[in-house]
Amino acid sequence: MTVYLVGAGPGAADLMTLRAARLLQRADVVVFDRLVDPEVLMMARPGAERIDVGKRPGHSNSQALINALLVSLGLSGRCVVRLKGGDPFVFGRGGEEFEALDRAGVHCEVVPGVTSAFAAPAVAGVSVTHRGLSHGVTVVTGHAREGAAVDFRRLANPDVTLVVLMGVQRRASIVSELIEGGLDPATPVAVIERAYMEGQRVQRGLLRSLAELDVTAPAVLVIGRVAHLELSHLGSLTDFASALPS
Amino acid sequence: MTVYLVGAGPGAADLMTLRAARLLQRADVVVFDRLVDPEVLMMARPGAERIDVGKRPGHSNSQALINALLVSLGLSGRCVVRLKGGDPFVFGRGGEEFEALDRAGVHCEVVPGVTSAFAAPAVAGVSVTHRGLSHGVTVVTGHAREGAAVDFRRLANPDVTLVVLMGVQRRASIVSELIEGGLDPATPVAVIERAYMEGQRVQRGLLRSLAELDVTAPAVLVIGRVAHLELSHLGSLTDFASALPS
Repeated sequence: MTVYLVGAGPGAADLMTLRAARLLQRADVVVFDRLVDPEVLMMARPGAERIDVGKRPGHSNSQALINALLVSLGLSGRCVVRLKGGDPFVFGRGGEEFEALDRAGVHCEVVPGVTSAFAAPAVAGVSVTHRGLSHGVTVVTGHAREGAAVDFRRLANPDVTLVVLMGVQRRASIVSELIEGGLDPATPVAVIERAYMEGQRVQRGLLRSLAELDVTAPAVLVIGRVAHLELSHLGSLTDFASALPS
Repeated sequence: MTVYLVGAGPGAADLMTLRAARLLQRADVVVFDRLVDPEVLMMARPGAERIDVGKRPGHSNSQALINALLVSLGLSGRCVVRLKGGDPFVFGRGGEEFEALDRAGVHCEVVPGVTSAFAAPAVAGVSVTHRGLSHGVTVVTGHAREGAAVDFRRLANPDVTLVVLMGVQRRASIVSELIEGGLDPATPVAVIERAYMEGQRVQRGLLRSLAELDVTAPAVLVIGRVAHLELSHLGSLTDFASALPS
């Protein structure tokens, strides 16, 4: 009677861990949502039951319902894998599922995954904590439902790279709050769309013009000096818009 | 002629990615240091050359030397895997190796890994961005050589979880700077030693008493409301010291 809360990684199926793959092959039931790549699901054994809890974009099932489902599956005694995009404990409400299972007396084990918060910047050649440019990195979400009223003014710190997940729609207000908080409007930014997936794209620019870039979700925003680490070979991998004045 | 900069994950060998494992099996040369678990190395094919660049604890080879070695191996035309503990671009100076290779015209590909910044808190049941308790997470290093003069006063934010890597030795000054910056001395903390390795241990307490805990490196410090998410089943997995007043 164990529910495994498993990180599926940032997109590409082979960026999941060996432990995740082994559990998928053993699972009787796999619970997933639209953040998980279809190729990841193909690694489950053919006979496994697959339950999609996030079918309708924008109308995903309520968290309470998902928690209840996981508890009931856990109590059924089958081997249950709950797949989460990225890492189960970095946004995405894995912590709530863990808590619900624990409260119901269902044993739950967390299998950490590669988070897109750091993996997406890497496709742009951006090391988020690059020595000499950054002392650290802050990860937040721009999504009100997930993060509830993040005060970006307090996050305006030129020495710490800022990574924003789910921030595409709110980026105009993120920019003004950061500038209001004292961040230089000429701070470099990088925007990575669809990291490790078909249609991956990288754009670079400056904080003040971030709102004007044409960006489609899902995308990860990187704000800070490290965002302009430009490396020659990336030209062949990614598509650069030149919002950056030369 | 490609050097793969590969994240080996937070400790346990099966927390490396499928892509990392596949590359290890293909590599002609594997370059590693003491942050990589010996079991990870066993996944390389028997004939592969193994180069340890971090033999003597406290006296690891200079970064410039490692960069030069990687460039020369890259130019030799063999398939080179440079293994880094955790994620190559989250501290650990992977960014500098990437830059050196790029400057020398050696193609370099980054394979992201599971970072211990988030995986270590997970063994303590701590979801670093737990909804209602945290708006986000900041990762820094306490190690002067890595992070150079992080101003912890600026990181005192009750709404953002703080994860400190390599901070065991400097923890007294980290605590005083955070309190000076306005963080409540009664902020919960969790300390995770040797996550996913033999001898793993979790301790919990309050910020004001963090310096008094008996901690051995390597350890990850988690500071913030989320640090006290206590879950019943964890008793069987981890060893709790009760620095936390009841």
